[in-house]
Amino acid sequence: MRILITGASGFVGFRLAAHLTAQGHHVVGTYLRDVPALEGVDLYDVDLLDGPLISEVVQRAAPEVVVHLAGLSHVGESWSRPADYFRVNVLGTENLLLAAAGVRFLAASSAEVYGAVPESDQPVSEERLVAPQSPYALTKAAMERLVFAAGGIVVRSFNIVGPGQAQNFALPAFASQLAAMSQGRQERVLKVGNLSAQRDFVHVDDAVEAYEVILQQGQPGECYNLGSGEAHSIEAVLNRLIAVSGLSPTVEEDPTRYRPVDLPLLRADNRRLVELGWTRSRDLDWALRDLWQAISAREAGEAGAHIATPV
Amino acid sequence: MRILITGASGFVGFRLAAHLTAQGHHVVGTYLRDVPALEGVDLYDVDLLDGPLISEVVQRAAPEVVVHLAGLSHVGESWSRPADYFRVNVLGTENLLLAAAGVRFLAASSAEVYGAVPESDQPVSEERLVAPQSPYALTKAAMERLVFAAGGIVVRSFNIVGPGQAQNFALPAFASQLAAMSQGRQERVLKVGNLSAQRDFVHVDDAVEAYEVILQQGQPGECYNLGSGEAHSIEAVLNRLIAVSGLSPTVEEDPTRYRPVDLPLLRADNRRLVELGWTRSRDLDWALRDLWQAISAREAGEAGAHIATPV
Repeated sequence: MRILITGASGFVGFRLAAHLTAQGHHVVGTYLRDVPALEGVDLYDVDLLDGPLISEVVQRAAPEVVVHLAGLSHVGESWSRPADYFRVNVLGTENLLLAAAGVRFLAASSAEVYGAVPESDQPVSEERLVAPQSPYALTKAAMERLVFAAGGIVVRSFNIVGPGQAQNFALPAFASQLAAMSQGRQERVLKVGNLSAQRDFVHVDDAVEAYEVILQQGQPGECYNLGSGEAHSIEAVLNRLIAVSGLSPTVEEDPTRYRPVDLPLLRADNRRLVELGWTRSRDLDWALRDLWQAISAREAGEAGAHIATPV
Repeated sequence: MRILITGASGFVGFRLAAHLTAQGHHVVGTYLRDVPALEGVDLYDVDLLDGPLISEVVQRAAPEVVVHLAGLSHVGESWSRPADYFRVNVLGTENLLLAAAGVRFLAASSAEVYGAVPESDQPVSEERLVAPQSPYALTKAAMERLVFAAGGIVVRSFNIVGPGQAQNFALPAFASQLAAMSQGRQERVLKVGNLSAQRDFVHVDDAVEAYEVILQQGQPGECYNLGSGEAHSIEAVLNRLIAVSGLSPTVEEDPTRYRPVDLPLLRADNRRLVELGWTRSRDLDWALRDLWQAISAREAGEAGAHIATPV
């Protein structure tokens, strides 16, 4: 199949592009500024706000499927850059939908669109009315409406973990601090934000397999939760990551790391995705070991070598 | 013409429904909970989130034009109720667009979608790329995309002033405090938020006439600024309102009235609207006198009588 992946330099996009290429698909990828080290992938430097350029790339790529992963994705940052989040996530998606009219289309959304869901209503299913709380979630919920209107498929990701996630997300930031400690570059005090929130974690390679299943089997106009069905507090995950690292740091709360709104619990009802044929193959400890290995190697100067390994 | 107005109990909707009825149009209005005192208007109690009910009302009304004014409209409040703002303003509009597919459609948006615009780029024209900063603005900017995609017309209101605006907006709140002072029910201290922001004010009856012009002459898929082209600081407007009231209170800043983000200046480039044939007939002092008269009468117990007067 000819597959266009936007955000091929991103956390999930990079590994999805590598995986699909290894499966024998013809993958075209877009990135912004930093060229990803992806062999066998046709790559284009594309700003989603550049409508004419997107049209040109889509025409050249002539994809049978578009997997739209590009976007701004940091809940905390969205409070200080709401306009950028709107432009990229909403107007950028609109440009891509126009350029790829009539083409099978998958777009990455987020469990954040569900907002604050009472524990009694969890695991949360796709039918639930969205209740976005953060600027990020508002832009993703808006983007979803455009995708549905165009007959596209929406994937609502819960928390994806593994090598390659940006350092401004909680687990890579923790791992990075731990790696700096293990190399004697930081005193053994780990600064953390709110640890009580509970989230549903999926290994990035399980997420890649989910996208593969959805791009082949997903129903147009439908929405799929991408989550494990389990929830863990950030505190529990941090303790497991600390165990993986073999260190014993002091953990210190840093109120400057708190978000204006932090949803207490998000746990996926993943039955729709499982019915399509997806199975989760890697548990949380597996994801944390892969994250730790990648970050400690990078912090030791072997930057990037690991993330070029496809699934 | 058969015209469906959503939000007929609202600030602009009420006066627009009365005006168009007086012009001989057949007006159908929707409201939520509180029945507006509108004679000659077919009224329906409709929650925009109730898709099937909206479809039924649109079928019964069989409108030639829909003027969609219903929505949540308070920037400050949107920070604490983002999910409600998203549901009503985005999902509600989507329901209405689906129900009224193929019907000429106008929707009220806001100058807030422009975000922080440098003074050198003002007056701001409709071509400017939006940069929404508040949850309210994010939902309005998202709503606009749905309206444009359906070939509808978007009206970007700047600040509308006059009788009938809800008390949680700045000018009615000021007028209400002044009226309470003039009746001896409040000490002569006026509590205010940020007064330095500059805004573009239009008398509600000029806004009504703008909607009338746009519903007749507006281009499908187009966007129109509804503003005077002048900007005044809130402080200057407050001083004029105080002059109208004949009182001389002490003005005191109250930081709890500040908004998380307050755009410093918004001034409309209204040439598109003027080219359609709109002229502004009422200046700011006129609007402030009408506001003061309405609020001081209401505070004196003659509640509501004034606002039933059509344009």
